[in-house]
Amino acid sequence: MSLAQFNLWIAEIRNDRTRGASELARRALELLAEAAQTLPAADGVELREYLLALAAQLEAARPSMAPIQNLLRRWREGLPIPADLNLTAARHLAAEQAELLIAASRRAVADCAAHAAKLLGPEPTVLTHSLSSTVVETCRLLQDSGLRMIVTESRPLAEGRQLAERLSAWKVPTTYITDAQMGLFVARADAVLVGADSVLADGAVVNKAGTYPLALAARDRGVPFYVCCESFKWRAPDDPPPELEEMAPAELGVPDWPGVTVRNVYFDVTPARLVSAWIAETGVRWPDVGP
Amino acid sequence: MSLAQFNLWIAEIRNDRTRGASELARRALELLAEAAQTLPAADGVELREYLLALAAQLEAARPSMAPIQNLLRRWREGLPIPADLNLTAARHLAAEQAELLIAASRRAVADCAAHAAKLLGPEPTVLTHSLSSTVVETCRLLQDSGLRMIVTESRPLAEGRQLAERLSAWKVPTTYITDAQMGLFVARADAVLVGADSVLADGAVVNKAGTYPLALAARDRGVPFYVCCESFKWRAPDDPPPELEEMAPAELGVPDWPGVTVRNVYFDVTPARLVSAWIAETGVRWPDVGP
Repeated sequence: MSLAQFNLWIAEIRNDRTRGASELARRALELLAEAAQTLPAADGVELREYLLALAAQLEAARPSMAPIQNLLRRWREGLPIPADLNLTAARHLAAEQAELLIAASRRAVADCAAHAAKLLGPEPTVLTHSLSSTVVETCRLLQDSGLRMIVTESRPLAEGRQLAERLSAWKVPTTYITDAQMGLFVARADAVLVGADSVLADGAVVNKAGTYPLALAARDRGVPFYVCCESFKWRAPDDPPPELEEMAPAELGVPDWPGVTVRNVYFDVTPARLVSAWIAETGVRWPDVGP
Repeated sequence: MSLAQFNLWIAEIRNDRTRGASELARRALELLAEAAQTLPAADGVELREYLLALAAQLEAARPSMAPIQNLLRRWREGLPIPADLNLTAARHLAAEQAELLIAASRRAVADCAAHAAKLLGPEPTVLTHSLSSTVVETCRLLQDSGLRMIVTESRPLAEGRQLAERLSAWKVPTTYITDAQMGLFVARADAVLVGADSVLADGAVVNKAGTYPLALAARDRGVPFYVCCESFKWRAPDDPPPELEEMAPAELGVPDWPGVTVRNVYFDVTPARLVSAWIAETGVRWPDVGP
């Protein structure tokens, strides 16, 4: 493994526009496991230093995505490589620690989806925005229970297309709409179900831009608004305020008009007061109970 | 003028996706003026019959657009062609009536914009959605008064691009965003200003899909939400409920996935309770006074 490879990995995580935060966090852990096995190092202590540097750079690559920070922090904390440990054992320990967290993350997504499916009940019509692994898994669980989906395209890169394609393969009757039509279609849903890139300590939800107006429309039309994500996505009360990542203006595909600034902020923040319930791997949290 | 030409005109009005309701109403009046001059007819009475049939078809072509109905109704009502009037005089009368209404419609847009510009005051930052002739005219009036604009793209056909292009030519500093970012940027505006395709008798606003969630976000962030349109756009209390036009799904540019229905409803309805003020050619109406 070379420095060039190392930089390619950082760039892969930084530039990924299709995978959700959990999936990218697992990918970061996979990269750490691979680095643990292949990184040239004199001994376990040096290996540990290199791995921690790589982890720090992976964390910094996507500051809006709490699961990357949280899972990589847990990986670092579980990584006490004693000075007398031989290199082979150190490699094995670091890689195994990453694989355990990948498995825990996958299990958390599955458990979240199971709670969401139970909460939604049979034959629900559900509206979602953007592409979330917990929502996809919930749809998979409910595909034979009369699920109907309403899917927004989710500009600029239209992750809604990937979801619509998957729902089509699962034979889930699906309505596909522009983001601008969310206010028209929210009242036809029994519930809105979205994932999250991260959840602030007070329960506010950082998710794909458009989630906040969708939550407002759901509240205005009396439709429950559920957020389904693993507890890895919750930020601690003392975490710094989330940075809302902005991507390349070129993604909007417009000309370069003089005096016109094209903005492409990927995430907005939905206040906790608009959330009907938070669904995590541990169960459903209602606002009364508090996040 | 032939039947083929007649049908082409109806199709032109039906298929136009770029002109706003007022502009299309004026275009319909232009077509009536041209028909009045060129339609083969035995006498004034026959001419009148043909023109009324054409007007009825033009009205039916865009049921969501109140100004087409209202201006064409006014044209019909001002069209008493006496049986003894010669054909040339009848042609002249019908065409002149259309031209008077075109002029009145243009004057109303200009007067609306003058009231809006006054209400916004100097150096305003204004967010708008879709492309409205009253909003464009307001921007033209304020281009040297420190106006800054925030413009949504307005999917599926992105009329926001036309507005951004015009604002660029006028050197108005402009921010261009996806529809999904409206919730992120509304708080940076001093006001939201939109036009309307029609306004219901209770003050609810039929406008480009996305206007309703935008109004919700403006209310949630304490930003005034102004609707600026000519009184031709108000519907009478006994008018039937508006039909929200739906256009070709192909405009969304997605594949034909089995089991997935692509919806493309162009308009949503913003309840009157979310409107801070209605601006018409006669002045500003606040909610206390009632629409």
